[in-house]
Amino acid sequence: MTPTTMSLAETQAFLDQEFPQMQAGGRAYHLEAVGPLTSRMRLEAHERFLRPGATVSGPAMMALADYALYAAILANIGPVALAVTTNLTFNFLRKPASGDLLADCRLIKLGRRLAVGDVAITGVGSDDLVCHATGTYSIPPR
Amino acid sequence: MTPTTMSLAETQAFLDQEFPQMQAGGRAYHLEAVGPLTSRMRLEAHERFLRPGATVSGPAMMALADYALYAAILANIGPVALAVTTNLTFNFLRKPASGDLLADCRLIKLGRRLAVGDVAITGVGSDDLVCHATGTYSIPPR
Amino acid sequence: MTPTTMSLAETQAFLDQEFPQMQAGGRAYHLEAVGPLTSRMRLEAHERFLRPGATVSGPAMMALADYALYAAILANIGPVALAVTTNLTFNFLRKPASGDLLADCRLIKLGRRLAVGDVAITGVGSDDLVCHATGTYSIPPR
Amino acid sequence: MTPTTMSLAETQAFLDQEFPQMQAGGRAYHLEAVGPLTSRMRLEAHERFLRPGATVSGPAMMALADYALYAAILANIGPVALAVTTNLTFNFLRKPASGDLLADCRLIKLGRRLAVGDVAITGVGSDDLVCHATGTYSIPPR
Repeated sequence: MTPTTMSLAETQAFLDQEFPQMQAGGRAYHLEAVGPLTSRMRLEAHERFLRPGATVSGPAMMALADYALYAAILANIGPVALAVTTNLTFNFLRKPASGDLLADCRLIKLGRRLAVGDVAITGVGSDDLVCHATGTYSIPPR
Repeated sequence: MTPTTMSLAETQAFLDQEFPQMQAGGRAYHLEAVGPLTSRMRLEAHERFLRPGATVSGPAMMALADYALYAAILANIGPVALAVTTNLTFNFLRKPASGDLLADCRLIKLGRRLAVGDVAITGVGSDDLVCHATGTYSIPPR
Repeated sequence: MTPTTMSLAETQAFLDQEFPQMQAGGRAYHLEAVGPLTSRMRLEAHERFLRPGATVSGPAMMALADYALYAAILANIGPVALAVTTNLTFNFLRKPASGDLLADCRLIKLGRRLAVGDVAITGVGSDDLVCHATGTYSIPPR
Repeated sequence: MTPTTMSLAETQAFLDQEFPQMQAGGRAYHLEAVGPLTSRMRLEAHERFLRPGATVSGPAMMALADYALYAAILANIGPVALAVTTNLTFNFLRKPASGDLLADCRLIKLGRRLAVGDVAITGVGSDDLVCHATGTYSIPPR
């Protein structure tokens, strides 16, 4: 029983089916939780995301934030493969240490046509934000 | 002879040395031009950037925009490996067709501490913007 | 004869009727031109917009950018009073000198549901950008 | 005794001295609290901020968010009149009802050169966000 439209397992299965290429090179994006207007996604610190100094790259964090936002929307409105990102804003705050990253997403609007959320990215085991993102998805008419 | 601090070849060489992992999986980001406050970067449409429908993924475009912005800054101020992105905003406007993408970057501020630029991403052979980005880099004291 | 849906005079008249309060304290926002996907709005440097050092305030520039974007949309799609701003991003680049400001708006997407544009704000008589904005309006179903 | 560098009263006094024009037309911006990395600012629903339908205007909310962010920075680093906004991003989520608005600001980075914060704007007595903002200030060398 889940208070979301799709459960964690259903949301992960839908993402895997629709966007298998996100996991190309080895499964690295792990959806850890979905809830009412929320999601949590973990990025495993694979070699392919690292930059010199063992820090996770900006593009890897941007992909993570976008993906967490999409997961939160899907879990809460059901399988809508055609929802598309229209806007994303990122503030990069600190260099992430090496290690996994957590993206905590919260939808601040879930309308009929637009969904807006913010995403806080932290290193596992730290409360310091390494990146903060806000984003908008356009939801197709149903 | 070049009106920029680093030539096209010098800028590309610096990027290759500092960020070899951008080209992991096969060289795909090609710096095509640098000029006073500008750069042009081409993204070759490798399989690894594609999404269903043969469209280039959002994260691939975000990486392209960030990289083009960095190249424009480097070409104009010289090799500063420690310049870091502090802010990026993206508007995704249309699905890109399959094929290479061009990112045209223009610096709208090049200060002592901050550089700001915008990036227009189009498909090769089309004038329609598929993505528009603005970004800020923090430049370390010299 | 005009290539836009509403002429300059029609657009200005619609703005005046729908948003008279923009001009409260004395007419200061002057729509100077509309064209295919473009508009130009001038902000007269009234005392009420100034900050110490005779510089125009940030909020005055933000209002100007938003208003120019709205004018460009109206001129190009006709009178839609219920179009609403959903997202605005500003980069403040230089202190404006005292004097009037010009906002040049260009729509980079004019879809059925969303319109996106960027706005370059300069001081009259200068090419230096003082502020760059991008914004999105949601357009109601017709 | 206060855990911030400047108390609520000191911060309000500094704002009043440096930016008296924010209150032109009648005091409307009320700093209600400052704390470690936080501030709360209330916008009194004066006639001059209203739009048709008795909703508070976008520019009034943008000014409120910027001002709350500045207050949070000042309270936490002390009187720095020359800190300047470099970037602001707004998502407008719902029409605010008539009535006062509250802006709750939280600094997510307070560095030596840059401060970044987000601001949640709600109507008094409601938890629904009407506007979400993120912003960056550049802090001058001391």
